Amino acid sequence: MTTSAPSAARATDAKAQYRPPSLNQVSVGGFFGPRIDTIASVTAHTLLDRCIEAGMLDQIDPDRPNPGLRIPYQNGNSTVTTQMFWDSDFGKSIETAAYALYRKRDPELEARVDAIIDAYGRLQADDGYLNSWYLRIEPGKRWTNLRDCHELYDAGHLMEAAVAYYQATGKRKLLDIMARYADHIADVFGPGEGQKRGYCGHPEVELALVRLARATGRQRFLDLARYFVDERGRQPHYYDQEAYARSGTPADFHFATYEYNQSHVPVREQRTVVGHAVRAAYLYSGMADVATEFGDRSLVPALEAIWSHLTDRNLYITGGFGPSAHNEGLTFDYDLPNATAYQETCASVALVFWAARMLGLGPDARYADVMEQALYNSALTGLSLDGTRFFYDNPLESRGQHNRWTWHRCPCCPPNISRLVASIGTYMYAVAETGIAVHLYCDSVADLQMKDGTVRLRQQTRYPDDGHIALTVEGEVARSFDLALRIPGWCGSASLKINGAAVDLPSVTVDGYARLSRTWTPGDVIELDLAMPVETVFTHPSVGANQGRVALMRGPLVYCLEQVDNGAELNSLVLTTTSQFRCDRTDDLGGTVVITADGLREQGKLTSLYSSQAPAREPATIRAIPYHVWDNRQSGEMLVWLRREGQ
Amino acid sequence: MTTSAPSAARATDAKAQYRPPSLNQVSVGGFFGPRIDTIASVTAHTLLDRCIEAGMLDQIDPDRPNPGLRIPYQNGNSTVTTQMFWDSDFGKSIETAAYALYRKRDPELEARVDAIIDAYGRLQADDGYLNSWYLRIEPGKRWTNLRDCHELYDAGHLMEAAVAYYQATGKRKLLDIMARYADHIADVFGPGEGQKRGYCGHPEVELALVRLARATGRQRFLDLARYFVDERGRQPHYYDQEAYARSGTPADFHFATYEYNQSHVPVREQRTVVGHAVRAAYLYSGMADVATEFGDRSLVPALEAIWSHLTDRNLYITGGFGPSAHNEGLTFDYDLPNATAYQETCASVALVFWAARMLGLGPDARYADVMEQALYNSALTGLSLDGTRFFYDNPLESRGQHNRWTWHRCPCCPPNISRLVASIGTYMYAVAETGIAVHLYCDSVADLQMKDGTVRLRQQTRYPDDGHIALTVEGEVARSFDLALRIPGWCGSASLKINGAAVDLPSVTVDGYARLSRTWTPGDVIELDLAMPVETVFTHPSVGANQGRVALMRGPLVYCLEQVDNGAELNSLVLTTTSQFRCDRTDDLGGTVVITADGLREQGKLTSLYSSQAPAREPATIRAIPYHVWDNRQSGEMLVWLRREGQ
Repeated sequence: MTTSAPSAARATDAKAQYRPPSLNQVSVGGFFGPRIDTIASVTAHTLLDRCIEAGMLDQIDPDRPNPGLRIPYQNGNSTVTTQMFWDSDFGKSIETAAYALYRKRDPELEARVDAIIDAYGRLQADDGYLNSWYLRIEPGKRWTNLRDCHELYDAGHLMEAAVAYYQATGKRKLLDIMARYADHIADVFGPGEGQKRGYCGHPEVELALVRLARATGRQRFLDLARYFVDERGRQPHYYDQEAYARSGTPADFHFATYEYNQSHVPVREQRTVVGHAVRAAYLYSGMADVATEFGDRSLVPALEAIWSHLTDRNLYITGGFGPSAHNEGLTFDYDLPNATAYQETCASVALVFWAARMLGLGPDARYADVMEQALYNSALTGLSLDGTRFFYDNPLESRGQHNRWTWHRCPCCPPNISRLVASIGTYMYAVAETGIAVHLYCDSVADLQMKDGTVRLRQQTRYPDDGHIALTVEGEVARSFDLALRIPGWCGSASLKINGAAVDLPSVTVDGYARLSRTWTPGDVIELDLAMPVETVFTHPSVGANQGRVALMRGPLVYCLEQVDNGAELNSLVLTTTSQFRCDRTDDLGGTVVITADGLREQGKLTSLYSSQAPAREPATIRAIPYHVWDNRQSGEMLVWLRREGQ
Repeated sequence: MTTSAPSAARATDAKAQYRPPSLNQVSVGGFFGPRIDTIASVTAHTLLDRCIEAGMLDQIDPDRPNPGLRIPYQNGNSTVTTQMFWDSDFGKSIETAAYALYRKRDPELEARVDAIIDAYGRLQADDGYLNSWYLRIEPGKRWTNLRDCHELYDAGHLMEAAVAYYQATGKRKLLDIMARYADHIADVFGPGEGQKRGYCGHPEVELALVRLARATGRQRFLDLARYFVDERGRQPHYYDQEAYARSGTPADFHFATYEYNQSHVPVREQRTVVGHAVRAAYLYSGMADVATEFGDRSLVPALEAIWSHLTDRNLYITGGFGPSAHNEGLTFDYDLPNATAYQETCASVALVFWAARMLGLGPDARYADVMEQALYNSALTGLSLDGTRFFYDNPLESRGQHNRWTWHRCPCCPPNISRLVASIGTYMYAVAETGIAVHLYCDSVADLQMKDGTVRLRQQTRYPDDGHIALTVEGEVARSFDLALRIPGWCGSASLKINGAAVDLPSVTVDGYARLSRTWTPGDVIELDLAMPVETVFTHPSVGANQGRVALMRGPLVYCLEQVDNGAELNSLVLTTTSQFRCDRTDDLGGTVVITADGLREQGKLTSLYSSQAPAREPATIRAIPYHVWDNRQSGEMLVWLRREGQ
């Protein structure tokens, strides 16, 4: 039996497009299992609790007294209050609850969600319009400020919730509500006479419409998604006209440039990642969806150029992006400050979405590596191990004042990271007509629907703690298909066996995936071994602050030092070229691998701020933990980029 | 003839208080001479040109059409526009012109200033009130928002201008105008019935009133200065009451806490440097003045504690402070970021003012060292060598995008650094009843007025390029007095000779000053030699970003690397423990000493953002120039804190 590489690298025709399995097709254990269990038993309820405590249900439910403005407009002078986003927060919380219900039956949770959906049902206007802010708090102002007010963004998150809840429970009510609303939106927006030529200042509805279209089979929603993508950034600029219509001027825009919301030029002309990070990655996700659904290659050059610009110059080692709090986004190339890194959790989640969608054209480690990097580091750190606290922004260095929130004035991140982790099984695998891709490694069982039947893949591994992965093909009959296994870019030494026989990896590896085309027989076992030594990672010299420093990585995990393990003044610790690393499995921190290294500590006995005396040094043991679990024990200093001397 | 140390360290009675000479008593050459000449011939005119181009004279001159609002309110929602500060900008520009006229007769400059003063004369209200914003742009609103609107701050800078111009030209017009206005202010503010118990949100008028009192002999102005100092921060809080009176609430305050303007608690209860940096140092200057004038020791514990808090935890190596752009001020201890250092030029100038006033109680290197550090580094860098361009904020690391402005939307810094440099002679010396202190070394001749006559001191030196200083006592008669010569804290090896005979420095040094008490005969020569090797300076371990890095200093000058000398990617350069330093005098950059060191350069050939490959290294020559002259050749990277390896 032979194993050969396919002749074409990336699929270019629609038939070879890879789509994710649905959630109930993947049973997740291993690393992510306990995290999903925590979300199902704790976080899903916590999110609803906190949404309701914040007053969201009062705003949404027309049977309750109108609560009016509860949260001041941002910055005192803005036209925006976080209450305008509340539908989106509920949407993502419902979506999380839906995934929780897949994981674990929970009638109480289901009843709570149903009650919220009932309120939305009562709220929906006769014409199908549905936005709690504009129906209850500012009636009469709908569709007057798409640039700032998140109206279609809200709709998008409720659409995603509707699809997830329908798929989880079989209940159609929210799906029908949102399809009706989507029809209304399609009436209002478009190139036709009397239609508005607008699009949302915060992309999201584009990818949501694609999802809604896939669930409902409605081409009209796909067309609307494409319209929003195509129209964005065209001249005359809709936000200019809208500003004048509000008796303002475009110059009043707080963020000065439409790069902020990626509408500075039409999307096909964009080549760089700019502006607000979450908006950016949601937009690119929607573009990738439209490219996939319509086979529209004209979007690909923009997507690929933006991807390169992000990953070559603007991505934190932790897989997050957007260094600045000011615009919650990008600034200039190589601007990757550590202590002030904004690196919003939502941006990392959105980057996972975008990367996953870039994989729709076929396995390519260029996208999957970044998906994994963001997932395990800058995204996952957003959620505490106990499932009750959340990071919004994610510095790579802290003096101890940065801790997870129980809630945030702008609570977009908690349900976003929760819905991602709770649905992570759908990111692990992808299925095309003739092939299966394994993008992420995690102990799991996947029942994958191929053209001619279901293939069950059983994945046994302690990844990312360990690099041994065993995949067993199960089922009744032999099938011929192309199995693509990702060989992570971080791995310098991988080996592969099929039923105990070694496979020459270089000869079968294409775009970072081992492509194994053969007839698979039930009981076939593929063993992948990914060497996982501790790597010291250096940064491009244009990132000045990281020079003379390294990040420690093991497998996909970026490590960091915490004060609780190393004492204060983490910048007094120095690695040398002779430092040795030891890896120990611990049951602490949800079970993880801790890195220990021998290094030096400079004696912090300076009493003055400055001194011409070089600090004395002594041997020191340095202990590092995965970045995603920092701040789960006690508040204190944290440091990713560690000093290192020598060559 | 014996030389002995005085028995008491710091003077505690008013008689021993040291006061600065007046400007015409010190003739400055050497290092500062050409800088002052440039201000006299170029900058003094440039400042007036740019003030007038900005429209300031249109606002001030009641014979011109009312220009109305020209500059938007800050941030769109603020109650503050920079036009409210324009009187202060004119004030400091007039003060600079006054010092320029000391240096060099210039009838054209004098005529321009006289015309502005005439406009102020026409503008002044019948009751003495004088503020161009509230008289012309917002009449009827005077004294309604002391917290935000800089009304008394404006008055203070015009008072300082009035004193300087009177002393420079003998012309009393502006002095009389401002004395009349000060009388009006003293009518309006105070503890009496019907008086307002307010004080300015931006301190300045306190120190200005002391200056005005000294020039006019008016005790009332001293009393008013003391009132403003004493009242600050008392409960019930004036800014609370004022906010309610404007139909607002104190919660609307943009900066959230009254720490921003140092009115959070009464001044005597303050122990830490907080809030807006310029406000802080102006307030402390006024407090020190009041302490000196009233012999009020109750202010000293606060001043000394705040000084320690600043210098022990919050002072940049360059002598500036206030890391944050948000509040133009302090954040938390040891927060000294380099690339984003705000370190406003005005704050460094104000720190020189404060330090000079702390020296009023007698020579103490604790204050004089910081005065020198701020002067030569973070303050002086504010002014280009050609006298036409200005830094507002002062990072310690730049990627090349930070360059001096020809003007700034808030043009407070240009005239502030100009008036300081133009009057620097008054900071070099101080005179008490029985002694003379030399605080700063610079080639100069000082005619110092002692109780029993004038002493002429001739100082010959190329300081700070060279550490040899020769002081010659000149005149007709022998006099007995205490001569205090500062032994800078940066100097590890100093030696002193009187008429060729060595003096044992440790035995005569008190509080960092060699105290030489004897009868001085004309022709006596004191030679001070300050060893000036290159020092590598380390930072307290709590300043994480500076660990593994050093600043290079030589004498009082902090050095930096520029791209024009070292190529790009300055963070690829590394000093080692065996690096040797060479110092060369150059005529470039206005004449200075350049440091050359041998080090290593990491090869910046990485094409990816991250790599597990340590960069290769090669020998490199590192060239450093004084920080204060950076950005005088071409735009490019700049770096103060340079990587250094080894112990």
